[in-house]
Amino acid sequence: MGRVEERLERLGYALSGQAAPVANYVPAVLVEDAGLLFTSGHVPRNPDGSFITGRLGDGMSVEEAYGAAKATALSLLGTVKAEIGDLDRVKRIVKVLCLVNSAPGFAEQPSVANGASDLLVEVFGEAGRHARSAVGVSALPGDVCVEVEMVVEVS
Amino acid sequence: MGRVEERLERLGYALSGQAAPVANYVPAVLVEDAGLLFTSGHVPRNPDGSFITGRLGDGMSVEEAYGAAKATALSLLGTVKAEIGDLDRVKRIVKVLCLVNSAPGFAEQPSVANGASDLLVEVFGEAGRHARSAVGVSALPGDVCVEVEMVVEVS
Amino acid sequence: MGRVEERLERLGYALSGQAAPVANYVPAVLVEDAGLLFTSGHVPRNPDGSFITGRLGDGMSVEEAYGAAKATALSLLGTVKAEIGDLDRVKRIVKVLCLVNSAPGFAEQPSVANGASDLLVEVFGEAGRHARSAVGVSALPGDVCVEVEMVVEVS
Repeated sequence: MGRVEERLERLGYALSGQAAPVANYVPAVLVEDAGLLFTSGHVPRNPDGSFITGRLGDGMSVEEAYGAAKATALSLLGTVKAEIGDLDRVKRIVKVLCLVNSAPGFAEQPSVANGASDLLVEVFGEAGRHARSAVGVSALPGDVCVEVEMVVEVS
Repeated sequence: MGRVEERLERLGYALSGQAAPVANYVPAVLVEDAGLLFTSGHVPRNPDGSFITGRLGDGMSVEEAYGAAKATALSLLGTVKAEIGDLDRVKRIVKVLCLVNSAPGFAEQPSVANGASDLLVEVFGEAGRHARSAVGVSALPGDVCVEVEMVVEVS
Repeated sequence: MGRVEERLERLGYALSGQAAPVANYVPAVLVEDAGLLFTSGHVPRNPDGSFITGRLGDGMSVEEAYGAAKATALSLLGTVKAEIGDLDRVKRIVKVLCLVNSAPGFAEQPSVANGASDLLVEVFGEAGRHARSAVGVSALPGDVCVEVEMVVEVS
């Protein structure tokens, strides 16, 4: 078990298994020459596999969505591990795009996105500090509250 | 005519010509050193050149928007060809971002995005399988129903 | 002072200082091997540091938001300079994603995004011509009217 995965275990996190897409796309694509891994948008799931649904500014709390963003980041790390074999190959989390299911007027997307950002820095330290955009979207697949994609530099 | 373009022809698809942007941007930028082509967001057009407009969850059907996403993917391939000369230089479709004009509560963005994904795999086979995000946005340029951008690895 | 910064000064533009993120992310990440810089989403501020807020199609004019997008591009260039030291190292502005706070039915996102695109071409000339997506989102952090992120090729 690699260094990063030991830290995940010590922190009490379990990598969630990635659901295989049911369509003509894949969870992530590695561009070897550029040393960059591009992930698909991932969505949060409850322990029973169901989606974590809801809309910010319309019933769902920032705290709940923060937790969902954190769960989504764990799912993304499961995908990264499946793709490159060992999370110690992660040189840097480069970019995170966090799309928050938002009613008009909801303006705290960064507080939701922090769920993903905090997890990534907790796990990777400085290498987990990424560029980030957090925005509010009108609707998401399966009514999930948040969708997150990443670009990762790998060695 | 290259191998990929022969397949396009055999499948009965015509690459749509790309409209030159009317502003200070371009349809795509190739980063030679990284071997990556980044496209602009493309939008769907009818055969007469007019936009395919509509909002999902508010009058437009998933089937119509699936077709529009497919047309947009053909337009993207027209741009890729214009940029790199020969679609056989496509090593991998890396990433697709599919933005679906969505009323709140519409949750089937993946079914719309499949129009683009299916076309890409039909044309490129395994090399067409990409990472993907599909999200719902509140509004799009010209009221189009879908906007799609791509990252492509080229040799 | 480099060539690009001389041009900025001659044009009467001042690079805005970048606000340090108050969370676990950074304004930009440079991937040296790929020669690509990925920025965080940046938002527009008034001279007093307050956000430029508003929603297109719901009270805010395209002209105001065009100016806000231009201010955001200057803020992005401040980040790029802070990251790579000298704007003359910019080989190409590769990709711009412009997210416009939009009421349903507002369809002129490109006219808003032009504020960023025009500034980039004014400053960098042909090297400033980028691939671009402009889309309407339901809500943005702090109720800002626009959020812009970039991918930049650096030497």
